[in-house]
Amino acid sequence: MYSGEESAEAPAYPIQAYPVEGRYGNYAPPSTNNDVQQWFAAVDKDHSGRINAKELQAALINGQGDHFSDTCCQLMIGMFDKEKSGTVDVNQFEQLYIYINQWLTVFRNYDRDQSGSIEEEELIQAFQQMGYRFSPAFINQLIKKSDFQNHKRMSVDQFIVVCVQVQRFTEAFRIRDKQMQGSITIGFEEFLSVALEGSV
Amino acid sequence: MYSGEESAEAPAYPIQAYPVEGRYGNYAPPSTNNDVQQWFAAVDKDHSGRINAKELQAALINGQGDHFSDTCCQLMIGMFDKEKSGTVDVNQFEQLYIYINQWLTVFRNYDRDQSGSIEEEELIQAFQQMGYRFSPAFINQLIKKSDFQNHKRMSVDQFIVVCVQVQRFTEAFRIRDKQMQGSITIGFEEFLSVALEGSV
Repeated sequence: MYSGEESAEAPAYPIQAYPVEGRYGNYAPPSTNNDVQQWFAAVDKDHSGRINAKELQAALINGQGDHFSDTCCQLMIGMFDKEKSGTVDVNQFEQLYIYINQWLTVFRNYDRDQSGSIEEEELIQAFQQMGYRFSPAFINQLIKKSDFQNHKRMSVDQFIVVCVQVQRFTEAFRIRDKQMQGSITIGFEEFLSVALEGSV
Repeated sequence: MYSGEESAEAPAYPIQAYPVEGRYGNYAPPSTNNDVQQWFAAVDKDHSGRINAKELQAALINGQGDHFSDTCCQLMIGMFDKEKSGTVDVNQFEQLYIYINQWLTVFRNYDRDQSGSIEEEELIQAFQQMGYRFSPAFINQLIKKSDFQNHKRMSVDQFIVVCVQVQRFTEAFRIRDKQMQGSITIGFEEFLSVALEGSV
């Protein structure tokens, strides 16, 4: 079947946050509301009282020593930015902070060799544990799209983007596949609409 | 039908470049190979002999006075970057330059009130002239996705991204709709594969 069946070994997803180590970022996890506010103030470089994607990006380092991608930061801000201003306030930031930590935890769980990247074999296992049954060719496509130079590995920000897209497209497919047949018949404009809506 | 029929009034697409005016950028069109090299040198801020998306972005201003988006610059570099290095050399840059000018010309043609943006009514006409027959709801979705705050207009860089995505998804649909019925039956993984491949 096409997704998300519960299996005995599958971890709850997303799972609880736990403290972030240096490899995955230059920030400390907040243990109190006061900590969140301090971290918010440090990230809010222009002291506007709101954090935009650029400010978030400047504060996030992936396991390969690079900043998170524009795409990933815009995607995540967009999820918590209820007013569609392209920014989050301190309360939305707290939710976003928890969300990022959840992804880091998921990523670290699948990064079995603790290399800071997910390689093809690890990604296959990751999606299996999430309940997907993807072909090797599809997994390879995901890796290639993320690591277009070497085709070997995925950083945590790339992993977040891929997983969010897969989740969105899966949901879009699922609501059209009412009888759970694993295939749908779809018209041109609806196809375009779904494909464009889910893309980030 | 779902796309691209030739119609009497449709302009060739993309069409020939012509000189760019200040509204659409701070660059002059090259009339000789020497001009291309001079512009290349000006954009290549780190003097690496190659131009990356960030350098391109710094040189491109849309009709609303903003730099082109990261997404648009990465998309365009990726089209001419045959070695998948994330950069273009001077020869690839010349092709890219022509490509950008073609899009600017298309955009200006559809920006009938010369506002520097394409509004909903203009976008409807633009896609009609390209041979598409989209519903008002779909056009509205495109505008909303680009202008997520005001839902009113699209800048040239947003227009390029939308058009390239529509072209890619149309092509992906068309090759599966062998009998030109305007609908396809598609399995889950293939659906995901197409949706992810076309997204930028």
